[in-house]
Amino acid sequence: MGPIVECVPNFSEGRRAWVLEDIADAARSVPGITFLGYETDEDHNRCVMTFIGTPGAIQEAAYRTCYRASQLIDMTIHKGEHPRMGAADVIPFVPVRDVTMEACVALAAEVGRRIGEELRIPVYLYGEAARDERRRDLAWVRKGEFEGLRDAIGCDPDRNPDFGPAKIHPTAGATAVGARFFLVAFNVNLKTPDLRVAKSIAKKIRTSSGGLPCVKALGMELHARGMTQVSMNLTDYRVTSPVKVLEEIRHLAAEAGVEVVGSEIIGFVPAEAMIRAAAESLQAEGFHANQVIENRLEHS
Amino acid sequence: MGPIVECVPNFSEGRRAWVLEDIADAARSVPGITFLGYETDEDHNRCVMTFIGTPGAIQEAAYRTCYRASQLIDMTIHKGEHPRMGAADVIPFVPVRDVTMEACVALAAEVGRRIGEELRIPVYLYGEAARDERRRDLAWVRKGEFEGLRDAIGCDPDRNPDFGPAKIHPTAGATAVGARFFLVAFNVNLKTPDLRVAKSIAKKIRTSSGGLPCVKALGMELHARGMTQVSMNLTDYRVTSPVKVLEEIRHLAAEAGVEVVGSEIIGFVPAEAMIRAAAESLQAEGFHANQVIENRLEHS
Repeated sequence: MGPIVECVPNFSEGRRAWVLEDIADAARSVPGITFLGYETDEDHNRCVMTFIGTPGAIQEAAYRTCYRASQLIDMTIHKGEHPRMGAADVIPFVPVRDVTMEACVALAAEVGRRIGEELRIPVYLYGEAARDERRRDLAWVRKGEFEGLRDAIGCDPDRNPDFGPAKIHPTAGATAVGARFFLVAFNVNLKTPDLRVAKSIAKKIRTSSGGLPCVKALGMELHARGMTQVSMNLTDYRVTSPVKVLEEIRHLAAEAGVEVVGSEIIGFVPAEAMIRAAAESLQAEGFHANQVIENRLEHS
Repeated sequence: MGPIVECVPNFSEGRRAWVLEDIADAARSVPGITFLGYETDEDHNRCVMTFIGTPGAIQEAAYRTCYRASQLIDMTIHKGEHPRMGAADVIPFVPVRDVTMEACVALAAEVGRRIGEELRIPVYLYGEAARDERRRDLAWVRKGEFEGLRDAIGCDPDRNPDFGPAKIHPTAGATAVGARFFLVAFNVNLKTPDLRVAKSIAKKIRTSSGGLPCVKALGMELHARGMTQVSMNLTDYRVTSPVKVLEEIRHLAAEAGVEVVGSEIIGFVPAEAMIRAAAESLQAEGFHANQVIENRLEHS
């Protein structure tokens, strides 16, 4: 089938549609890229684009979007609620199929090097691609945002970029380039309007309060349906799968006398996550991904 | 992603390895074919091959295997326990991805026509490709086997082939060409050595005794593990899924005071079957196959 990587760059523009279309076209122009769409937030004045392709294509497309963003977005006049430090603010590479995390880390380093050297934008490697343990955390990389980094870079050695000049780009700022695993957005709906139940379950299952590994969770209201929801990001479905999470929430909900009425998978999910979920819930002994007939295709 | 069809031809040869390799090579020689393997049975003196590919490639590969089989297998000296009427005995086309049953029926007709006209082998369209309701049933098409059909063809109008001469091929016999849905071989293991429990559950769930639709089921012993098994073929996982079947068996086993210890998926399964199973067991509301990121690939 061949390797597929996802790129989910974030740009500091959420209002000027023509700018976003121009940046999107920069990705679409690369052969081997499937452009999946983008979501904008006007208050954040920010946009998240999603595209997939072969490692070679994704590298070129990511670079081109950063290049166009650096020409079209001026950070000195950018305002928005979301923390940001550059025109192309964050560029993560995500393994989807037949590609390792190491390969995505290498992609991040190569794209980061090009952005630094050719566009003269300081680049920080983050997430799995970080070369400094502290830089794994994007919030740490981005602290002070564009304005704070402009002052700190070149003075504070902690803020030395991995690539490019130790000097902020006057309009395009700085860019974080990295690698991470696929995020699965998974929500479980509870048949109760009582938000406390959802919040209590969210707290029990999320990693940050000692719950399951690789789970971020919040309790939310679903006003229109008179229900509540445990809204989650699963940061590694191989470690904690949606099946495991659902089972755990079912158990906790039952203890609270509440029924689970269903779930939602938001946005995209890799086929592998669904195939694993099926094998897990069927308790299919010895099941191997190479039993999936399409996984055997040499030509597709 | 593009359409993918599976072909699972059965040949009346299960002993001479060089013959099988020669026939397999005929399929492998077609660009766009992924040859997945074959299984032989010496007692049946029969072989089942599996290959997948684009509709154009699968059509050519199926024809070439039939051609080689007709040159290498002599039905006048063939002996084996399994019912059979031709060198290439049965050639089914199975939709795997992005292809309709109608397209597979059309493939069967086109390949059948070529086999009939070019190889002068009488061809019967069966299964979904049948043009006579009775010919949907392969057993009906094959009754009397090679020897019986040799006498009946040309006399009994019910045995007139859909393509080719109304006269048996002297050595290659006759061939059934058809289309069917993907078979999922799915077994559920019971924590009891009592075969009666497995047999009773199999009887309750199989279609032929008024159980679930599209389910064939038998009770089997798993001697080595001291357990028993409900061994099934799901003939349309869209109608009755493995999730549904497992739930039903769990329920029936509980009534008998027996525990379900796991399941097995034997051989190949389409990604779609696993993706549907995951969505079903997660009760994922509104889930659509286009959320599976690989399904969006324009280039792969």
